[in-house]
Amino acid sequence: MDNRTNKILSFLQEIEKYKTIEREVWCSNLDRAESDAEHSWHIAMFLLLFEKELPENLDSKRMLKIALMHDLVEIYAGDTFAFDKKKRATKKQRESKSAKKLFSQLPKDLNKEFSDLFEEYEEAKTSEAKIIKSFDKIQPILQNICSNGKSWKKHSITFSDIDEYKRKHMEHNDFILKIYEKLLNDAKKKSLI
Amino acid sequence: MDNRTNKILSFLQEIEKYKTIEREVWCSNLDRAESDAEHSWHIAMFLLLFEKELPENLDSKRMLKIALMHDLVEIYAGDTFAFDKKKRATKKQRESKSAKKLFSQLPKDLNKEFSDLFEEYEEAKTSEAKIIKSFDKIQPILQNICSNGKSWKKHSITFSDIDEYKRKHMEHNDFILKIYEKLLNDAKKKSLI
Repeated sequence: MDNRTNKILSFLQEIEKYKTIEREVWCSNLDRAESDAEHSWHIAMFLLLFEKELPENLDSKRMLKIALMHDLVEIYAGDTFAFDKKKRATKKQRESKSAKKLFSQLPKDLNKEFSDLFEEYEEAKTSEAKIIKSFDKIQPILQNICSNGKSWKKHSITFSDIDEYKRKHMEHNDFILKIYEKLLNDAKKKSLI
Repeated sequence: MDNRTNKILSFLQEIEKYKTIEREVWCSNLDRAESDAEHSWHIAMFLLLFEKELPENLDSKRMLKIALMHDLVEIYAGDTFAFDKKKRATKKQRESKSAKKLFSQLPKDLNKEFSDLFEEYEEAKTSEAKIIKSFDKIQPILQNICSNGKSWKKHSITFSDIDEYKRKHMEHNDFILKIYEKLLNDAKKKSLI
């Protein structure tokens, strides 16, 4: 077996740990937390299902790639809860270190590709990255609706807490802003926040 | 909010259940079973990482779509363990019924797209579907390696059981056959089977 294939197979085993990184939100059966892998899968499904509503001139394959890998660095850096200000202060530094450690396990070309995709997501300057960043913030609202707002209740999260943190990530796209407001209002109507 | 967007948002809530469908294989922390959503995410990562090794003339976006949605019907039909002959006998019928129930919740165009993608995967006549079918059979080998063969040991699965069931799905592509054999031999060397 050549070195390249071996490296990729080892990497596929290493990133299996993505399934063991727990997020601060529950699955609908309320048995356990949602994993990073499940969160990423769900965002990719937003992309597939809203394909016709998103701008036509985007690189949809690159968007899928970013959706699937955007939190991989948490394998070493851990999940940082959006409303944990203390942990958020060190997030960038921890994740940057983790990115180097993780992606350097790949063959050179893939190391570059994954490092670039992660940087693109973090900087959120491209339209593609902005859309994933929006869905990354919308998906936990939908997930909380699916799990009776268990996480919001546990952490006493209010409508304003969410809106203050998330709305700014929606304003680049009218359609995305519309579904964000719809879900947040649904959560309010159901008294989950 | 228009009817189309409402339908898609409801569907995104319905398929959240994909995270609650447990497969007959463990996560590496041995805490719990892998979910369908995690399995699908992992197959999509095989596609991203082996992009250069796969034939160039394929529709890589359609492959990603099939990878992400290929087991969605299990939301109603449940997971069917590959080595459970009794449940396998009714699999096709149960899943076909589930596909109708699930995808008909989507707007007409997406209902057709998802039904077609599922049929393409099931029939496995296109090169794209054959590749996902292969990775669908390879990923659990890698997952068992990550979880110390716990599922194989529980069900007394042997090397021959696996090879008899899975090898035929690899023979369409030399590279895929090579990684399949490598992982299966790794599992044997580690005495997991």
